[in-house]
Amino acid sequence: MATAAEVLGTHTREVPDFPTPGVVFKDLSPLFRDPEAFATVLADIGDRWRGKVDVVAGIEARGFIIGAPLAQAMGVGFVPIRKAGKLPGETHTRSYDLEYGEATIEVAADAFVPGCTVLLVDDVLATGGTAAAAAELIERAGARVTALEVLLELSFLHGRERLPGRELHAIQVD
Amino acid sequence: MATAAEVLGTHTREVPDFPTPGVVFKDLSPLFRDPEAFATVLADIGDRWRGKVDVVAGIEARGFIIGAPLAQAMGVGFVPIRKAGKLPGETHTRSYDLEYGEATIEVAADAFVPGCTVLLVDDVLATGGTAAAAAELIERAGARVTALEVLLELSFLHGRERLPGRELHAIQVD
Repeated sequence: MATAAEVLGTHTREVPDFPTPGVVFKDLSPLFRDPEAFATVLADIGDRWRGKVDVVAGIEARGFIIGAPLAQAMGVGFVPIRKAGKLPGETHTRSYDLEYGEATIEVAADAFVPGCTVLLVDDVLATGGTAAAAAELIERAGARVTALEVLLELSFLHGRERLPGRELHAIQVD
Repeated sequence: MATAAEVLGTHTREVPDFPTPGVVFKDLSPLFRDPEAFATVLADIGDRWRGKVDVVAGIEARGFIIGAPLAQAMGVGFVPIRKAGKLPGETHTRSYDLEYGEATIEVAADAFVPGCTVLLVDDVLATGGTAAAAAELIERAGARVTALEVLLELSFLHGRERLPGRELHAIQVD
């Protein structure tokens, strides 16, 4: 029985020069296409956090592909963290710096029961800018971020340093 | 035990004037936040198509929230249909008309084993433009679209008429 890290290793495709020259993109499409492999990864995360959080939040858009089935496997609700302008009704928003320019993310104003605990999920931790902003956004919305879980951490980009004091788990660290 | 249609009725929020004045947006966030209700809807879809398709494809981004856990519940792979520029490597693309302007969607060139059968999933069928383009895109990529499944069909927008000859199921029709 392969471990989650082994499964990730055999189901990640490296695509050079995407989205920009010099960047090697870690494509998890082969994982999502293989139901048994994906189930192994989801079970690994679920076993780590089941009973410890009230909600799974996923960062648009690949975080939805991981977070929604994870929430179902854990028996908790799923909340999407979306790009600006996508959510109807009242929202909390947070802007953060990108290498060039700025990005804004949102969450529904009524997404969380006050004080509830949240597992924040994304596919890859790169510079950590989006993850840090998402965690702050969740707290602004009245919930507590118990931990951040990613499938892959690109440690050479030092994203972990932008998440001081936060619990962060990566299945695989490159 | 509530039916999937009943669960949808009690877990859909109507938001007037989103994304544009005069439109009433059907927000399924309350469904995604309620794990038992969401499981009821996923089980309804899964029971209808289990054993009849090889892959679930979901349309970005709300189709990911439904399609990914559905694929896991059905024991098949998940393939994302993405907006232009998001997928690394070789892709198939398809452009289609919107009310104002044009949109382009993509799927990975190697997403499907040739001839495999696909259940295409989205949250809401509105004008049907995106759904029709996604079905054509999947066929361009070498697979067969067995059916399209949506949670809500807005029948007054006549989206079904843009999907002639296609199997289409909606849990709830407004």
